[in-house]
Formats: sequence, C-alpha cells, structure tokens
Amino acid sequence: MLTREENEFLCRTDKGTPMGEFCRRFWTPVLLSEEIPEPDCPPVQSKIYGEELVVFRTTSGKVGVLKEFCPHRRASLFYGRNEEEGLRCAYHGWKFDIEGNCTDMMSEPADSNFAGKVKILAYPAQEAGGFVWAYMGPPELQPPMPQLEYLTVPENQRKTNKVLYESNFVQVIEGEIDTVHASILHSRLDALEKSATATTLAGRYSYRDIAARFHVEDTEGGILIGAKRNAEEDSSYWRISRWLFPWVTMIPREPHGSCRSGLIVPIDDENCWFYLCRWNPYGPLDEEWNEAPRSGMVPGTWLGKANSTNHYLIDRQAQKTETFSGIPSAMGRAQDAAMTDSMGRIVDRTEEHLGTTDTAIIRMRRRLIMGARELEDGIEPYAASHPEVFKVRSGGALLPREVYFKDDPVVWDDITVA
Amino acid sequence: MLTREENEFLCRTDKGTPMGEFCRRFWTPVLLSEEIPEPDCPPVQSKIYGEELVVFRTTSGKVGVLKEFCPHRRASLFYGRNEEEGLRCAYHGWKFDIEGNCTDMMSEPADSNFAGKVKILAYPAQEAGGFVWAYMGPPELQPPMPQLEYLTVPENQRKTNKVLYESNFVQVIEGEIDTVHASILHSRLDALEKSATATTLAGRYSYRDIAARFHVEDTEGGILIGAKRNAEEDSSYWRISRWLFPWVTMIPREPHGSCRSGLIVPIDDENCWFYLCRWNPYGPLDEEWNEAPRSGMVPGTWLGKANSTNHYLIDRQAQKTETFSGIPSAMGRAQDAAMTDSMGRIVDRTEEHLGTTDTAIIRMRRRLIMGARELEDGIEPYAASHPEVFKVRSGGALLPREVYFKDDPVVWDDITVA
Amino acid sequence: MLTREENEFLCRTDKGTPMGEFCRRFWTPVLLSEEIPEPDCPPVQSKIYGEELVVFRTTSGKVGVLKEFCPHRRASLFYGRNEEEGLRCAYHGWKFDIEGNCTDMMSEPADSNFAGKVKILAYPAQEAGGFVWAYMGPPELQPPMPQLEYLTVPENQRKTNKVLYESNFVQVIEGEIDTVHASILHSRLDALEKSATATTLAGRYSYRDIAARFHVEDTEGGILIGAKRNAEEDSSYWRISRWLFPWVTMIPREPHGSCRSGLIVPIDDENCWFYLCRWNPYGPLDEEWNEAPRSGMVPGTWLGKANSTNHYLIDRQAQKTETFSGIPSAMGRAQDAAMTDSMGRIVDRTEEHLGTTDTAIIRMRRRLIMGARELEDGIEPYAASHPEVFKVRSGGALLPREVYFKDDPVVWDDITVA
Repeated sequence: MLTREENEFLCRTDKGTPMGEFCRRFWTPVLLSEEIPEPDCPPVQSKIYGEELVVFRTTSGKVGVLKEFCPHRRASLFYGRNEEEGLRCAYHGWKFDIEGNCTDMMSEPADSNFAGKVKILAYPAQEAGGFVWAYMGPPELQPPMPQLEYLTVPENQRKTNKVLYESNFVQVIEGEIDTVHASILHSRLDALEKSATATTLAGRYSYRDIAARFHVEDTEGGILIGAKRNAEEDSSYWRISRWLFPWVTMIPREPHGSCRSGLIVPIDDENCWFYLCRWNPYGPLDEEWNEAPRSGMVPGTWLGKANSTNHYLIDRQAQKTETFSGIPSAMGRAQDAAMTDSMGRIVDRTEEHLGTTDTAIIRMRRRLIMGARELEDGIEPYAASHPEVFKVRSGGALLPREVYFKDDPVVWDDITVA
Repeated sequence: MLTREENEFLCRTDKGTPMGEFCRRFWTPVLLSEEIPEPDCPPVQSKIYGEELVVFRTTSGKVGVLKEFCPHRRASLFYGRNEEEGLRCAYHGWKFDIEGNCTDMMSEPADSNFAGKVKILAYPAQEAGGFVWAYMGPPELQPPMPQLEYLTVPENQRKTNKVLYESNFVQVIEGEIDTVHASILHSRLDALEKSATATTLAGRYSYRDIAARFHVEDTEGGILIGAKRNAEEDSSYWRISRWLFPWVTMIPREPHGSCRSGLIVPIDDENCWFYLCRWNPYGPLDEEWNEAPRSGMVPGTWLGKANSTNHYLIDRQAQKTETFSGIPSAMGRAQDAAMTDSMGRIVDRTEEHLGTTDTAIIRMRRRLIMGARELEDGIEPYAASHPEVFKVRSGGALLPREVYFKDDPVVWDDITVA
Repeated sequence: MLTREENEFLCRTDKGTPMGEFCRRFWTPVLLSEEIPEPDCPPVQSKIYGEELVVFRTTSGKVGVLKEFCPHRRASLFYGRNEEEGLRCAYHGWKFDIEGNCTDMMSEPADSNFAGKVKILAYPAQEAGGFVWAYMGPPELQPPMPQLEYLTVPENQRKTNKVLYESNFVQVIEGEIDTVHASILHSRLDALEKSATATTLAGRYSYRDIAARFHVEDTEGGILIGAKRNAEEDSSYWRISRWLFPWVTMIPREPHGSCRSGLIVPIDDENCWFYLCRWNPYGPLDEEWNEAPRSGMVPGTWLGKANSTNHYLIDRQAQKTETFSGIPSAMGRAQDAAMTDSMGRIVDRTEEHLGTTDTAIIRMRRRLIMGARELEDGIEPYAASHPEVFKVRSGGALLPREVYFKDDPVVWDDITVA
C-alpha cells in the first residue's frame, strides 16, 4: 500500500516531476529502428514522458529526435520534409539538423541572420539493439549507454517488438516482475496435468507449487529476484528475474535459454510503450514471438487486436474449458494488458493488499522512489553513470533444496554477462 | 427554478454526497436478472451511483454484487472466473464469495492466513421482479424490499426491460411524471381528429384539453398526481401517476388496465438506467412492448438505435406530416431521450421557467431535497423502512365533473394494492 | 511572442471575455443561407463564441437565431417544429418567434398569461451574401452591416463555402494573412522551373524571391498588407492582402481578378468555422473552387476528407516528388489545416519565434488586443459603427521598383470599392 502522495510521486513523469527527472537521467527508447527504416524516410511522432517528439533518419542515416513543434509558429514537424541532412517544416520551410540548429530559413531574406539565432530543442539520439534511444536529461550529465547484452548481440540473435498499454508504466513493470501470475493468469486449465510430460522447467514445475517464496536482493542496477518452488522431492525450481533502473525488466527463462527483456517507457502518465527484445546470447534466434506477433496487432498501429474496446476478446467458453483467463495470448499481450489496464489508468495503490509474492514489487517501488528522492537531494543515480550494472540476464534453475540460487556458479554464470 | 446549489444537491449521487447517501438507503436495481441468466455465467459490470461493481450468479444460483476491483492489486473482476460459489480474479486467482470473503488465495503459501484478513466490498443482493437488487447503504440499516406489486406477481404477468439515458436521473424522472407532454411530444398530428373513435380513455380525451389541471398530494411513499382534463360535457378525464422514493415512477394507465413502472437509477451523475416493468395485476400479460422493443436497441447494448449520435433518427418529413416530433417511438424511448438528453448531461435549472403543469415536478424535487436534508440531520427516510408504502399503482378514470379522483372508491381500489 | 496572459486574452471569446465582447460588437455569420434553404425547413444548430444557438427560416422566409434551449425545461429546440412563423419545442409545444416572444403555450390553460412573461434569448439576424448573420452584442449598440463588397454583388458573381477547423480562430487568421507560406506550403516542387511560362503574376513571381518584404499599414477597418518581391530587373511583384475587424481576411489576387475573403468565426475557443466567399466584382463568376470543393468534404459535414484523424492524407511519396507538403489541396483546405491544427487547439505563443515575414501577424494581434482593451475602457470599436471601412479588396500588382503599391492609382482603384 502506498499513500496517495507516494503513488503520485511514483507514477508521474512529466517534465519537472521528481520521477520524470529521474527517468530522464537514463537513455530512453523512443522508437523501433524499423519505424524509420531508411535515410530521409517519413518522420514519426513519439510522445515520451509527456513530451511530444518527432523522430527522423537523415540522409546519411543518423537518427534525430526533436521537439515536435517548429519554433517559428509551432506547426508540427511531423508534416515536415525530411531531406538533405535535416527536417524542414512544411509551413515556411525552416530546416533543422539533428542537433537542433536551423540550417535554412527560406521565408526570411537571404541576408538575414535570424536562422543563426533560432534553435529547436534536440535530444541526443543513437541506435542500439533495434531501438532508437534519446537522452532527455541535462546535457552535461549525458551518460554512456547501458550495457544491456541485447544491444550488442549480432542482429540474427535478437528480435524486437512494441505494444501499447493504456495505463501507467509502473503497474506494467509490476506485472513483469510478478512471476507468480504466470502460473495463474497465463495458464491452461490442464497445465498441472500436462506438467508431468513437460520438457521445460517452467512447464514441469510452475504448476505444482504456485505460491513461490520470494528472495529479492538489491543490486546496483536494480533488483535480482529469485522465486523458489518445490520441484522434486529433493530439488527446488528457481525462477530468476530482474528489474533494472528505471523501467527495464527481464522475466525468468530456461537455463541457458533465450532471453527476453522489456523496456516499459512512459508515453505520458496514462499510457506506456512496452518495447520488447528477445535474444539468444549464444547463437542465432530462431524462435517465433508468441506474445505479441505482428499479425495480432490492429493494422497500422501497435495496439493489440484484443484491447479494452473489445474486452480483450475474452472468450467465456474458453475460460470455462481451456485457459484460466479465456483471453487470447497472441493478440498484443492481451492477458497482461487486461489486468494492468483494467486497474484504471493509474492504479489506486491506497486500496491494494499486497501479499508475500508481491515482495519484488514492493522493493522495486522503494528503489524507484528512493532514487527520485535522492535526485531531489542532488544525488545522481548510480546506475545511469555505471553502464556495466546492466550486464545481466534473468534465469531459471533446478537446484538441490538447500542451495541458494546465487550460490550456484553455473546459475550465476548464466545470469551474468561476462 | 432552482439555485445552482440546490441543483447540485439534487443531482449528485456519488458516495458521500447527501443525495447519494439518501438513495443508498433504498434497495437499488443493478441489472436485469436475464443479464446473468444461469449459474456460473460470465460476470457483468454495472456502475451505480458512480461506483463500479461486478455482478455475478453463483453455482447455487445466488446473486453477488462486489466492488469491481480485486483488493489485491486492483485488476477488474469482470475478467474473473465465476466458479464454485465464488468469483476468482484472473490475475492471481484470489476468490471471493458473495459476502466478500476471500475463500481462496492460490498465490500465497498454503499455510498463510492472509486470505482471512482480506475482504472485498460486497453489497447485499437479491432478485425480485426480474431485477437484481443491491443494498448499498450502511449494513446496520438494511431495509426490507419495497412491496412494489410487480416484484411479486407471477412471471407471466410481467415483462422487464432497460434503456440507457445519457443524462442525469432527475431530469428523466421529471419526464416520467410530466403527463402533459404525452399529449404533445408523443402525439400524432391526427390525434385530435381520431380521438372521436378512440377506444381508450387516453386516446379519446388526451387531445381535446391538453393543459390539464394538476392535483398533487404527498404520500408517505412519494407523491400521488392527478391531472384533470375536461372530457364530455359533464365528465372529467383523470390521468393518475405516481412518484415513489427515490426514483420509482408509475405513469397513467387505463382503468384496471396493465401497469408500467420505471426505476430510474443513476449510473453516475451524467448517465442513468431506465429499468422498466410492465405488468398486469389481474392475469397474464400478453401485450407487446411498444416503447423500447429489444429489436430497437443497438445490438449488444441497451442503447436505443435512435440516440444522440444520430439525432434520434429524427425524420423531418414525418415531423411535418405524421407525428409531432418526427422521432421514431420504438427505438429505445427515443422521443423522451431526445428531450431529456438534449438538455445537457445535468440540466441547468437556474434557467428554467416552470408552469402550472410542472407542479408534480416541483413537488418531487422538494421531497427528494427534503429527504436528503433530513438524512443529513440524522432522520432516516420513512419510506425505506416502510415497504408497504410502495403498494400502489397509477391509474386513469372518467369521472363526473365534481368528483375528486381520490374520492371515487373504484378508482381508489384500482390505484392501491390490497 | 506573447505572454501567456496576452495569448489567453487574444484567443478566448466566451460570453464575458474581453475578446468575446469585442467580437460580439460585429455582425457575425452563423450559417450559410443554403443550410436553411426554404421556409419552415428544419432548424440547424450553430455554436458561435461558445454559445449554443438554433437557426431557422420562418414561413415568410425570415431567419431567426435563438438560444438552443427552450426556456421551459431546456429541451433543445433543434428537435423543434418549424411552423407558421415560429419554432415550437417538441416537448410541450411552446412556440417562439424570431424576436424570442413565446407566441403559443399549448401546455398551459388557455386563460393563462404565462406565455406573455416568457422570452427566449433571440439575436437579431439577417441574410447577406449567402450567409446568415447574427448580432450578439448589446441591443442598443446594434451596428449596420459591414459594407463588404461580396454581400451586395449579384448572386451569379459570388460563391460561398464553409470548412471546419479544429483550432482557435486567431491562428487560422494568422495563416490567412501570412502570404509567404503560399510560396512554400502550397507550392509544387517544380514551381520555380515552371514560373518562366506562368500566365499569372503569382505563378510567375512567387517562387523566385520567396522572402517578401512586408509593408503593413493600419487602416480604420484593420490592416493593409503589401508584400514586395523582386520580379524582373526593374520591377517588383506586390501581393496585397487585408485583415479587417475582427476576423475578416482577403488574400492576394491577380490585378482586377476575382476576389476571395474569409470569415473566420469562433465556434468555441478550440474550433472555428472558415466561411469563404469568392466573388468577381466585375461580372459573372465562372471559376471552380479549388480550395475546398464540396466533393472533398466528409459527406453530411463541413469537415474535409483530409483531416486530423488521417494525418490530412499526407502522401509521403508525393511530398518527395511532386508537392512541398504531400497533402492534397482539394480536401477541405487540408494543407492549411494541417499546419494550423497541428499547433494544438490554442497555439502556445510564448514559445514562438517570429521573423520579418510575420510583421502582419504581429500587427493584427496588436490591433485585436488593443481593440478589446479599449472596449474594456468603454471605447466602442470604430469599425463596427463605420460599415464603409469594409469597402475594400485585396490585390496584386507588377510595379516599377521604386513605386510603393499604394501610390499607384490603378492599384489603389483595384483594392478599393467605389
């Protein structure tokens, strides 16, 4: 439970808010690279932390992130012409480069030096891992990129995706680090019965002992979560997940299996993007997406076909006979979104009742709030300036009963990037 | 005319408002029984007095009315599983019975006693007359059900229905007890001409003398309205209607004819449900609905096909040559809704000009306001705890000029339930 | 740049605001005459300066402009019956004439004198130039109609039209008097190349010297704008436009060519109507509309088919190879609307950076603000009571380099109505 004030503090990220300033200390994804696929392609709008931006790729292939509105008379640069290393407003042809300089002003006399006095707000931008990233914090504090493994693996070892959520980013993060709901919300009704013949640890051991015991440890990058279930007589099944500042998640995986991470970025206080990366640290990634395949999205959007307007296509007959939720799994993360979005745009945490399996959630909130409070006191976030703290993975393991997951060297190796 | 303050006082029913608390002293319909047709069928959302609720039918057929959001992390129980005498949240499987007890908590360890400490807000609920009713007031003051005749007649003697209005409940009540507009808004242009051969009192005498004289009397249950029109040389036509606390209406009828009552329940301050019952006190009801047949509703909703988005399908040619309004009558109470909804979500009563035919409206408002003010002073509403005051009907009569409608024993017998 | 306070002062026109009161001193178009084409035709809703109105044509052909809501219980008179010199409410049949008198009250007794005590707010109305005009200011100050030429030319010499903008009226006015953007936003990519063979002054000289030098003069009616471009070695091309109080614009034209004027009327603070008139002062008007043909509107509305919901149908390929904007020109003024509406409903003028070509815009704002401030001080607007100040046209001319446009008698004759 949070007080109303804590909840507001936690969730609001507009410019000038404590959490907004905290988040802006980190490089933030603003688009998938594929959304601006080639030089001089059409610019794309992106709202991040409540700020309207326009993102474009220059003639030489660089990415630019500008405030959406032309500084002249505020027409949207979304309608602009992307040409010769700059974005030109369609209204009077003012042209801006990726650093925000006005490089041409065709509406003013040739001998005018007005262009030299005009700048548009431009954020430093770069590409990594299939995402376009911007840094929206104080220029003098620009940090290095986080050393997330999936930003550097070869392209054939990763896939990226993106889904719109109609709720605040914190409750979506909470869903990600809440590994217990996977055995419930996402389960089939015959999951326990079929577990005997399952070929994965998750399939075999997630349903016999649902109420996992949580072990949460603070790390410099965020938190490390071990959720322990009884497996065989003498063994435990550990599901190991991560939350990293300020909105990075990594859900449990099979030992040495492929990985998945979420980047859960505020659009504004009532909507967020769920950027996903699936990657294989060890070789080519052949797997299909099973959470949010492109065919499950409303065409031309990043909204799942199963969404709030159609009650996430819940099938009450399927809910009775096949799956726990009755909601399809391949229509844009619909099962998760139905939970997260139905709480209301910003969930009222003064009314919640947290249990032992919410331990990770409690810790994540505390770290986020503490980080933003420290920043208010002038203490810059450690993780922003120490990119190596992001060199981690999630994990999964079957271990003898008495072994703590972190103490097993093979597990440790698997959840740490060399 | 009301002051702005009076108008606010009269119309607002959220939790904690004087009128909201007053209304919550009465059993309130939250659904039609047919909306949850069988044991363990899908739960249904219902917002009443601004409170989001979920309504469901248990395995044993009982009805439950819970707050919509799971007390754990506030996911909507609308997506829940209705199974084995309880509603189970789809997120982590917390299960609640109709009294709000948490009867299972699969996400917590088996030896946890957390479930015993968690409750969801549950309102007492029951079914009567084809409606699901909830009591949303203080538990210690739970009253008996109102002894409305149509809650106890055999099922073949009644029919129920429901229509969405996009405006505050009070102005919809006002339309119901405003019996004069029937001779105008709902009339055909040849009504007067055809009245000579009409077979009903209403058809014969509603159009010759439109500006009825109103006689309004306070009753313990609300008000009794007699609207007197000249009929033949020596006779009067009386249209007799009722308003009962806090939102029950009964419009005039033919002598000993079938009856109709409205239950006009706030969804929130800007929308309301019009629950209808048509019943025959004396035998089977064979009549068709002519106000809001199901075929006239937008499929899958309770909104009339003629609604604000299409200007209630007004046909200007029909308005010139056939009917007074040009609006169809069988598309979800469209003629009434066009008037009530076009006033604005909450009509500005500081700008109105009431005439003699608004006498009943003035009295109804005064009773409602007085009731809510008395409750603020600690005086509980008499009608809530005296269910017998609802044992009444509306009526209609042709009487000698000098006879007051209440003084005629046949009429009195017809508008009173034995 | 304006301060936030100045921007609010400039843009807000609800009843009681300084700019709203200033605008209400002038006759204001509320509909096209063609929208109420014949006696006793259906009434039409129109919101102007934030006030909901209903406009109708009586049996004898006069136009009436009333507040939309019946003074009885506030039902919308849009649903009313238009019959025998008055508009009758569909609810209880109260009937009002164009002066706001209640001429019949069928719901009250025949001997009642209540009708005589009830009035509805009625604004003086008249037709001119294919528009219905209302005067919404203090009755005792009702001015004569502005002597705009197009209000008096024969019908075959003019055409009228109307388009919805989803933004505040001031930024739409700014677009109209910003004659430089025509050479940019509205240009084809081969405009300069084709200018050598162009047959109009605009086609020949708008693209060689885009950054025109502005000469703006105050007039009693508003401002007169001359934008000077180098043409041939020894000549200048002048584009001459007008802004007249409070929202009349006239864009440049060919010498002695047909004219165009805009009447940019607030619906509310976030939407406006662009009423257009094209006229030929000298003879029949044969030209087609090329800005907002009726076939380019969403059927049944005055919204262009290219609008904010579809990003104004921008064609990025066309933007690369054919036109500067890629936005179609004949879908409801889409190129202009994309600029004006994308600024936000009310553009934030605290963030703008104005150049030399914004001189006219700066002057127009100053005159509007000054006019409204003077009115606050009790000084009535001169232009409202001096209709002859509207006897002007815009213009265009090719003149020797040293001649100032106003000093050429042929030009002066062309931009002045005798």
